[in-house]
Amino acid sequence: MPNTSRFPARYPNTDRPEKDVPMTSPNAYDVTTWHVGNAHDDIGAVINSIIADIKRRQVHRDLGMGGKPGAVIYIPPGDYRLSSQVLIDISYLKIVGSGHGFTSSSIRFNTPAHELKDWHEIWPGGSRVLVDLPAGDAQEEAAGAAFLVRRSGNPRLSSVEFADFCIDGLHFEDKAAGDEAENSYRNGKTGIHVASANDSFRVTGMGLVYLEHGLVAHHSDALTVDNNFIAECGNCIELRGMGQASRISNNLIGAGYDGHSIFAENFGGLLVSANNIFPRGRSSIHFQDVARSSVTGNRLHSFYPGMLIFSGTCSENLVSSNHFLRDHEPWAPMVGYDNGLDDQFGLLHLNGDGNSVIANHISETIDRRFIKPIGEKPVIIRLVSGSGNYVANNHIVATTEVEIARDAANSECFATQVGAILATANLTQLEVVAVRVEEGCTGNTILDSGTEAQVMLDQAANAFRGTPSLPGGLAGAAV
Amino acid sequence: MPNTSRFPARYPNTDRPEKDVPMTSPNAYDVTTWHVGNAHDDIGAVINSIIADIKRRQVHRDLGMGGKPGAVIYIPPGDYRLSSQVLIDISYLKIVGSGHGFTSSSIRFNTPAHELKDWHEIWPGGSRVLVDLPAGDAQEEAAGAAFLVRRSGNPRLSSVEFADFCIDGLHFEDKAAGDEAENSYRNGKTGIHVASANDSFRVTGMGLVYLEHGLVAHHSDALTVDNNFIAECGNCIELRGMGQASRISNNLIGAGYDGHSIFAENFGGLLVSANNIFPRGRSSIHFQDVARSSVTGNRLHSFYPGMLIFSGTCSENLVSSNHFLRDHEPWAPMVGYDNGLDDQFGLLHLNGDGNSVIANHISETIDRRFIKPIGEKPVIIRLVSGSGNYVANNHIVATTEVEIARDAANSECFATQVGAILATANLTQLEVVAVRVEEGCTGNTILDSGTEAQVMLDQAANAFRGTPSLPGGLAGAAV
Amino acid sequence: MPNTSRFPARYPNTDRPEKDVPMTSPNAYDVTTWHVGNAHDDIGAVINSIIADIKRRQVHRDLGMGGKPGAVIYIPPGDYRLSSQVLIDISYLKIVGSGHGFTSSSIRFNTPAHELKDWHEIWPGGSRVLVDLPAGDAQEEAAGAAFLVRRSGNPRLSSVEFADFCIDGLHFEDKAAGDEAENSYRNGKTGIHVASANDSFRVTGMGLVYLEHGLVAHHSDALTVDNNFIAECGNCIELRGMGQASRISNNLIGAGYDGHSIFAENFGGLLVSANNIFPRGRSSIHFQDVARSSVTGNRLHSFYPGMLIFSGTCSENLVSSNHFLRDHEPWAPMVGYDNGLDDQFGLLHLNGDGNSVIANHISETIDRRFIKPIGEKPVIIRLVSGSGNYVANNHIVATTEVEIARDAANSECFATQVGAILATANLTQLEVVAVRVEEGCTGNTILDSGTEAQVMLDQAANAFRGTPSLPGGLAGAAV
Repeated sequence: MPNTSRFPARYPNTDRPEKDVPMTSPNAYDVTTWHVGNAHDDIGAVINSIIADIKRRQVHRDLGMGGKPGAVIYIPPGDYRLSSQVLIDISYLKIVGSGHGFTSSSIRFNTPAHELKDWHEIWPGGSRVLVDLPAGDAQEEAAGAAFLVRRSGNPRLSSVEFADFCIDGLHFEDKAAGDEAENSYRNGKTGIHVASANDSFRVTGMGLVYLEHGLVAHHSDALTVDNNFIAECGNCIELRGMGQASRISNNLIGAGYDGHSIFAENFGGLLVSANNIFPRGRSSIHFQDVARSSVTGNRLHSFYPGMLIFSGTCSENLVSSNHFLRDHEPWAPMVGYDNGLDDQFGLLHLNGDGNSVIANHISETIDRRFIKPIGEKPVIIRLVSGSGNYVANNHIVATTEVEIARDAANSECFATQVGAILATANLTQLEVVAVRVEEGCTGNTILDSGTEAQVMLDQAANAFRGTPSLPGGLAGAAV
Repeated sequence: MPNTSRFPARYPNTDRPEKDVPMTSPNAYDVTTWHVGNAHDDIGAVINSIIADIKRRQVHRDLGMGGKPGAVIYIPPGDYRLSSQVLIDISYLKIVGSGHGFTSSSIRFNTPAHELKDWHEIWPGGSRVLVDLPAGDAQEEAAGAAFLVRRSGNPRLSSVEFADFCIDGLHFEDKAAGDEAENSYRNGKTGIHVASANDSFRVTGMGLVYLEHGLVAHHSDALTVDNNFIAECGNCIELRGMGQASRISNNLIGAGYDGHSIFAENFGGLLVSANNIFPRGRSSIHFQDVARSSVTGNRLHSFYPGMLIFSGTCSENLVSSNHFLRDHEPWAPMVGYDNGLDDQFGLLHLNGDGNSVIANHISETIDRRFIKPIGEKPVIIRLVSGSGNYVANNHIVATTEVEIARDAANSECFATQVGAILATANLTQLEVVAVRVEEGCTGNTILDSGTEAQVMLDQAANAFRGTPSLPGGLAGAAV
Repeated sequence: MPNTSRFPARYPNTDRPEKDVPMTSPNAYDVTTWHVGNAHDDIGAVINSIIADIKRRQVHRDLGMGGKPGAVIYIPPGDYRLSSQVLIDISYLKIVGSGHGFTSSSIRFNTPAHELKDWHEIWPGGSRVLVDLPAGDAQEEAAGAAFLVRRSGNPRLSSVEFADFCIDGLHFEDKAAGDEAENSYRNGKTGIHVASANDSFRVTGMGLVYLEHGLVAHHSDALTVDNNFIAECGNCIELRGMGQASRISNNLIGAGYDGHSIFAENFGGLLVSANNIFPRGRSSIHFQDVARSSVTGNRLHSFYPGMLIFSGTCSENLVSSNHFLRDHEPWAPMVGYDNGLDDQFGLLHLNGDGNSVIANHISETIDRRFIKPIGEKPVIIRLVSGSGNYVANNHIVATTEVEIARDAANSECFATQVGAILATANLTQLEVVAVRVEEGCTGNTILDSGTEAQVMLDQAANAFRGTPSLPGGLAGAAV
């Protein structure tokens, strides 16, 4: 027989005095029915009041082998202004909505007023948090966060979950950018900022838009970031501090021209898989001092060099089965921006030891006049430093692009982009350096990733087998 | 301080006169409590009435930086007949249930009445929409859709979401098929038909069954189709018109013998990953004029040639880390059907330039008497047209199958199928053409995907390195 | 016009006499408001009562083309003791919570009392089921299951779903382990035990912790196990009996030192993809007599040999794009445990025919004094038996580890682990057998997965091409 005496007759958390609406449980909250504040005026104050209520009710940490189960806070579809920062300092809190609510604010802000006046709607929607915090200081990133997660002491916060709602930064507003402020990707706002060590968090199904930072998480263990829509943010996903054994998968992601789409530092065992990472993004994926991690099965598209960057010392990582596409910005409002890198930097720019780059497809298609420096062959895979790397069976297709017609209306972003991506006819081959192993790098192995003529390396210091050359005079569309 | 004056004291959408049940928010609807219609009689009329209510309430497109957040419509578990088509012409609408409710109607309709009378249940379930529209005309596909999504003007519809419910077409009823009508995969019904340009839609957790078309989406941008169960439909997922930057991932899929499991046309940047695509399906994946897209990490199983088809001009796509299995139909009721293609067509039938086919496993196991034309070696990977393609490190295992015993009861579909798939003992090697590069195709590279004897290509026009041959006389179970 | 006469005016399941709280539908239940029992005292009795109610109400199996749609049972966040086993014998039942609630009980039980007294919380949370069943007998695994799914007759149970709640086994309590009982991974408890044939089940978003068996499913067809957190369980996911066409994807998983993280037997068409499988786990993935299945895009980390095991005859499976890491246990409380295998066993230990092992990264880093037997080169990929296997383009990085400092506090599990995984500096190369093809195995093909000196095989019986050797005297960090 089970030892029933270990359990109380009733858990203290089953009563709630402030039962002003019929609720299924005191641990299931709805921001629109909470008795303190008004969620449409300031959802931040409402959620903070709810968290205070949870803490007031859940005070026993070991009563009947439980006592602090946390709660769920529901945000129905609607517009909810946030002018008070939410501070989450309890485990097992789930905040959930019913709609990620993304729409392209970038297209909207680049559409002329005379077109815009006929639009059906202009703002994002769903269960939508409108971040109306005062502009943050760049040195105090956490201050600009709609949701700040932070607790001192032990244990680490566990199982905080964000799901299925929208966090909208509303406007970019870098004053220095003048008329281009809405294209500046700067407003000092962050969607979710996890400041202290955390375990088993989940961020799923969210829509993050027009934030300078979408999700920033420090010291993460077993974090899940899955199936989110994080786009038109200055930076999308940043894993900072250190961390391990986490997963960024199945997301649609695209940062601004000088921000990170995915960034991680001092991380081990990170799995970045099956994401569709679109432009712009200063880089698509940037690892700094990351080890024994994977980038597999992603589709990445960029308008600039430096799509995948391993900086510092990144070791024993796997990059496989990814599709990389780099072409030139086709949409007029953004043509003036890039990440400042030239084509010698490498589409894949890699530092570190013992990495594997296997079975990737890499397309670069660009009009010769956009290549920097003009006349020099772009570098596709560049081993900048390190030893023991293994680069095998990558297929690099480099072509010149027909010039993009720039007479499309700004609102025609979609048709312009699809036209560009499908423009594979009438391309001619572009000469590139398929793989460049920097002088001084030794002990690397390069196989079947370019012909002898396309690969630059010191064969006295590295192992090499070129892709068999096509019979004389022949060349496909592909390298 | 935040500029509070930009926000109204209350959003107009926070009141709803027709508050006939306690609801958390006017934007959270439940089809079973809506005051117009009866969801069990016609859920379509109920949802259309709800959409009209949303549009009536949400009229301001720029009030306090919001005004049209959309809504969620909840479908609790239950049987809901749909005799009125739902028309969705607003953004940010989420329709969500609590159960995908799939069961095999195919097994049920092929089970003799004397067995069936003892069954516990016979229909699909969950949050289940029974599509009872009049049979659609093949020329008017949209007319037969349970959910039609269409709006003119700008912007494109954004963030419409379908989640966690079941759409059941009830019966296949091609009159020409006579007694076999329930196996005809035809009834003119579509689950979800997205007719106009759309952005950031999600279809997740759905169960679609016995529909001639499961999901049809035109002009999609950043579409997510994830974790659905779409099977026993004539066609499962069709991306039509054009589109970009989308994701079909983590689904269980299987179409009818003359329909598409996954089809896409004029698409760029599509990621098809980690799906388990089972038979039947005329093809498993069919791309037409698709560029710079990925097919990675899928498991595909088919009973016919033509599992993966690239038609028109499909360029710079990546096909990697997939597991392809082709064997012969083992289940008696479906043995009479196939897709009409012969084994010279190619299991992978590819047209276009600059594609990559890397690191796939391909198993074909079939009794010689089923090969068409009899006596000719089946073709596994066939490059029909194009240049610059790269085919490397694919492992092709071709064997003859022991004959399938056909004495199992029709209801024994499961045991029959598992028995067939596990029958790897006592197989003998089948000679196949591992890779065939059509005459006239030049500039392609074929590496380590078959021995010299197994690959047909013009070595004067293409680059080739054969898999090293096994020592004389030896052959594994595998090619 | 649709034939409306086929439908009843009202479905019988739309009324429920026991309507003691406002509910949206009689098919949507909440354990905290059900009129029988008290969910905090025994959620098992409450759910069994609800299931009885569903069966009492849903008695017509073919009324208006429906009649047995099932139901959803909601578990709000809270602590719910389970002392009665739940028996599920109906299709289309979804049990759903609002929080997976995982926290590390392993760290907690290995933290000294004087530290623990300051902890904010000590138990898992979320929508949490506390399994308080009497200890099960090892021979009667099903008896110890919190949720037992079983039905005889036809059809198979369909579309039972478990989502977003926590099942906590509370304590490990192997008496033989004495003071180490909480590290024993034994308590006779199972989270979910599916005993009979099933179709289209889903287990998603769950948190399973401190159970001897997390999820056990027999005879599964088209099962989905996605996005769960299943860790600190004796065994995590076990697919037993036989099965086909299923998917284990996007999970965070880690079993005990003598249990399975993922196990499957007699299975065809299983897709194991994009999981992050961390230690410990006797193995990370173990297939027994599994055919035509895939292991792709996973990240696996283990402290012992035998990370991937194919036992019996496993044929025509694909292992690609995975990242394997094996190092030595860095966390003091677990240093005394391992799986008993030595380093000759093979990190990948493979039996069977026609398998593909392509494009994987494998890191082994270990101090020489931990290698068993000492002084012998560890074996990385070992083909123990079978023919027709294809091993290509795997990158093996083997290094010696700096010794782990063991002076960290037990509660410093996180920092200790991250430190270990990032410790890639100052490593030196470790000599290993990259691939060993057992004597007597013939007809296998080994390409570019190790130099001639690193691969042991009978070249008279197998095909081989070594990775090109590095120029004389050079060696990277990598093999």
